[in-house]
Amino acid sequence: MRERTEAEHAAKMRKRQAAHDKIVAAKTVEKGLVIVHTGTGKGKTTAALGMVVRAIGHGQKVGVVQFVKGAMATGEKAVFDRFPELVEFKPMGEGFTWDTQDRARDIDVARTAWEEVKRMIADPSYAMVVADELNIVLRYDYLPLDEVLATLAAKPAMTHVVITGRNAPQPLIDVADLVTEMTLVKHPFREQGVKAQAGVEF
Amino acid sequence: MRERTEAEHAAKMRKRQAAHDKIVAAKTVEKGLVIVHTGTGKGKTTAALGMVVRAIGHGQKVGVVQFVKGAMATGEKAVFDRFPELVEFKPMGEGFTWDTQDRARDIDVARTAWEEVKRMIADPSYAMVVADELNIVLRYDYLPLDEVLATLAAKPAMTHVVITGRNAPQPLIDVADLVTEMTLVKHPFREQGVKAQAGVEF
Repeated sequence: MRERTEAEHAAKMRKRQAAHDKIVAAKTVEKGLVIVHTGTGKGKTTAALGMVVRAIGHGQKVGVVQFVKGAMATGEKAVFDRFPELVEFKPMGEGFTWDTQDRARDIDVARTAWEEVKRMIADPSYAMVVADELNIVLRYDYLPLDEVLATLAAKPAMTHVVITGRNAPQPLIDVADLVTEMTLVKHPFREQGVKAQAGVEF
Repeated sequence: MRERTEAEHAAKMRKRQAAHDKIVAAKTVEKGLVIVHTGTGKGKTTAALGMVVRAIGHGQKVGVVQFVKGAMATGEKAVFDRFPELVEFKPMGEGFTWDTQDRARDIDVARTAWEEVKRMIADPSYAMVVADELNIVLRYDYLPLDEVLATLAAKPAMTHVVITGRNAPQPLIDVADLVTEMTLVKHPFREQGVKAQAGVEF
């Protein structure tokens, strides 16, 4: 391929900028989004944590409820606890369901966590509410999907709700504004026997 | 489908736990990972920011160099600047290449940012180094890929390096330990005219 001259490069970039500006100008809607991170890859929870960072960096109030993570100390909790006026961070899970082996108790835990999410969503002072691993709970039918959808339908207009976890149910995807699927391309756990490490996994 | 009894559920979960424990026990390797977030979906940078949160929550030192983002105040910068002893956060870009329209200048900017990344990677006191949007720079051939690969090959054993951006080059994927592709399932920008919003996009 022939190298483009500087002038050609600049012309191409000018054209691209004009196209970009046109797209940006057409976007005028501001609204709270229902955001879903799903798929079997990494990054679903970490991307939600990154959004929490951005929101609190703008002085917005954020609520985070973790449906699976519980007692274990995590890096994210240590950081967000430094912003008590902006982040309410609640790891309310008791581990994966194979740790508890007690369905009735898992359902109770899911219900308690979900009531917290509902309370946060109902309160418009929260700019963003993260329901971390909610999809896992829905997958096991530990919460009625209809109740979750009704809560999202009735949320304050400007509140962002971020829901993570693999196997997002299709009706949730249907009502979401922004859905990203994280796909595993390569994973050191499976291929190299690398264990979960502080800073990466928790 | 017949409802499983509680005993059947518990038995199934015990079996799953045993399988899970076996997998965990087989994972004994601790090492610094080369992590790539690519794909056209959202979440590449935010998931890297989430990893930064985790790392600093464990008291680890992290360096972040942003190859595209520059002058604009971001939520992430406001937060990470609160941890000056742990995070060196450097937005060194000058916007997308269609903003500058000057290839020689873009190459200079990429080179300066890359020298920062190299300095951080060479210093084992950094537990994690994030090269945000490096893939974009590689895509435009603003940096020699071979130099990037050589730097990764020579990195300290325990340093995690996180590289983001769409169109990760295949040779980079080949040397990476953990590669996630973020795929767009649904995006409000295109479909609803929703503009970039504080807390979500920046």
